[in-house]
Amino acid sequence: MADHGVPVVRWADTPEGPVLVLLDQTRLPAEETELACRNAQDLVVAIRALSVRGAPLLGVAGGYGVALAAARGHDVADAADRLASARPTAVNLASGVRRVQRAYLAAIDEGAGAEHAAAAALAEARALHAEDAEASERMAQLGHGLLGDLVRGSPMRLLTHCNTGILVSGGRGTAFAVVSQVHAAGELRRLWVDETRPLLQGARLTAYEATREGMPFSVLADGAAGSLFSGGEVDAVLIGADRIAADGSVANKVGSYPLAVLARHHGVPFVVVAPVTTVDLATTRGADIVVEQRPAEEVTHVSSPYAPYHPETQGERGGGGGGIPVAPTGADAYNPAFDVTPPELVTAIVTERGVISPVTSETVAGLCSPSRTTKSRWGSGMMNA
Amino acid sequence: MADHGVPVVRWADTPEGPVLVLLDQTRLPAEETELACRNAQDLVVAIRALSVRGAPLLGVAGGYGVALAAARGHDVADAADRLASARPTAVNLASGVRRVQRAYLAAIDEGAGAEHAAAAALAEARALHAEDAEASERMAQLGHGLLGDLVRGSPMRLLTHCNTGILVSGGRGTAFAVVSQVHAAGELRRLWVDETRPLLQGARLTAYEATREGMPFSVLADGAAGSLFSGGEVDAVLIGADRIAADGSVANKVGSYPLAVLARHHGVPFVVVAPVTTVDLATTRGADIVVEQRPAEEVTHVSSPYAPYHPETQGERGGGGGGIPVAPTGADAYNPAFDVTPPELVTAIVTERGVISPVTSETVAGLCSPSRTTKSRWGSGMMNA
Repeated sequence: MADHGVPVVRWADTPEGPVLVLLDQTRLPAEETELACRNAQDLVVAIRALSVRGAPLLGVAGGYGVALAAARGHDVADAADRLASARPTAVNLASGVRRVQRAYLAAIDEGAGAEHAAAAALAEARALHAEDAEASERMAQLGHGLLGDLVRGSPMRLLTHCNTGILVSGGRGTAFAVVSQVHAAGELRRLWVDETRPLLQGARLTAYEATREGMPFSVLADGAAGSLFSGGEVDAVLIGADRIAADGSVANKVGSYPLAVLARHHGVPFVVVAPVTTVDLATTRGADIVVEQRPAEEVTHVSSPYAPYHPETQGERGGGGGGIPVAPTGADAYNPAFDVTPPELVTAIVTERGVISPVTSETVAGLCSPSRTTKSRWGSGMMNA
Repeated sequence: MADHGVPVVRWADTPEGPVLVLLDQTRLPAEETELACRNAQDLVVAIRALSVRGAPLLGVAGGYGVALAAARGHDVADAADRLASARPTAVNLASGVRRVQRAYLAAIDEGAGAEHAAAAALAEARALHAEDAEASERMAQLGHGLLGDLVRGSPMRLLTHCNTGILVSGGRGTAFAVVSQVHAAGELRRLWVDETRPLLQGARLTAYEATREGMPFSVLADGAAGSLFSGGEVDAVLIGADRIAADGSVANKVGSYPLAVLARHHGVPFVVVAPVTTVDLATTRGADIVVEQRPAEEVTHVSSPYAPYHPETQGERGGGGGGIPVAPTGADAYNPAFDVTPPELVTAIVTERGVISPVTSETVAGLCSPSRTTKSRWGSGMMNA
């Protein structure tokens, strides 16, 4: 991976004490600005302002936030509570925070002094970060191998949707990590980047990541993907997932399902890349996934990191109110946050444990059920199936 | 048709002489501003600034421009030359201009004075306008009848793409005219309006027209159409066409083809509405249609009628340079202006002469070839086939 940019999250020891330094995502791609958090409250503000975002990355940042409070001798329990609730819907955030808090408390229980407990907390945050990076790395390798089997001819043209790289993870990400691996191997002819309306995560963030890595890429209006398929310009589609049901249905950013239908119509592989934690066995079928409807203003208005931004009123950058209107005042909008692709349209799901293909209730349970003990059963053998 | 808004183009006799009054489309949907052209040059400026646009409407406006020059006693030949070349690629513009110029010259040749020749020119422009309106009206009726046959249950949910109504035609338009007819009959449950990136003609202009007519409508990101199909929320898709090849392949605004694939996947009728002049029998197959690639800035930037606008540098409002960047500086973009839908995915083509269904080389030639003499052969009988 050729990555010469600013780290997305990093711990730094300065003469004034330890800080957690974040790449401010609200300013991307306009500028690469770092934001130094000196205490948990700084990080809460950064999380709320979406300077740091993406479920796995929030878990990592939240974990470091607890370590920061411990290292600075602040009230760790209070810091953890405030961090865990900074964005209530982000389960990874709370789980990362609590994991590091538990490591801190365990050290205290074992009679360690505050300094040693703080070191234990930082070690746990770093372990969480490393595990996330390791899962990304494994998905990148498995996905790369899978594409070698699925796609005839190299270099290849890959199409992706939304943002799934270093900006959402402690490591290289999910779908984008696979693209990055293909690129590092000299096998990427072009990455087609869906702009991903309404919030433009493709144009803003994936294009930024592709630029950072020196990939050959082109941004396109989501509706232009059809022309690429009919022109034979797409060798495979790679996307991430917000949630995967027990039957293998994949909920992901709105606009993913039309790509799955186009891919099937044109006989192009449609590959989902997601860690095992994304699989929700409690959700039986795709139809059981409740689709969140987002505010109309995300569609009727457009905002940009190059335009003035007010996090309090605008919500996630690129969406919410406060942007520039493009539709008549008061126009209604249909704005689901994601859509659901049925398993029969998914060629494979790449996880850090192995590749699921074909995608059925049985193969999903085989890889992801808690009772599973070996990692090889649905591993590389599946890949070559 | 319930239309209480400002006319898109109208001739007015004022104390200071005749004027051609245009609804300034560059200001839509932010405001309804009229623009009075006192001579051909005013109209040339308005055409270049895209205050008036849409192929059939440009023909009508250009025709009135020649009549205006004649009525004001200006040099008619010079006015016609300047008008005809105001936008070189708009064939309808030149053909409307030359048709009215011929009427003027014929009157002169027959010995009419300048005043009578000017009256003949205005009569011809009005005839052109009326014919365009009549074709729209006929398509609206035929399309409405067709939907009655294709769609079980009323009121219905229709999905459209781009802008195809009063803003592009001397009458009610093409696909939008059919929607309007359905609405007037009390049979429209909801119009789903694709925002139509990159130039947002759906969000800006179709939403404006739907608001004008009091329709129930919702704007959506183009990628969200898939969710509507999978949820069973679309009864039919209605689009216009830029060009139809002899085999029935339909070139239309980029993003149309993915809708055709989704419609087929979900068993939803996909209906094209276009006047016979759109059929180009000289283009044998869809593959022969050359797809124009537009500037990257239309995708990497977003502009809005609510933001400052400079027609000289921005080109068509909503596109071109000069908007607000959303992607990294220098990002490449893939930006085809339209895509091509093969005839096997098109349920029917509605023209003013009748409905073509199924769409094949034979049925297209039967309705559209110059040797065709009767209007009934592929008319309403086809509709019920």
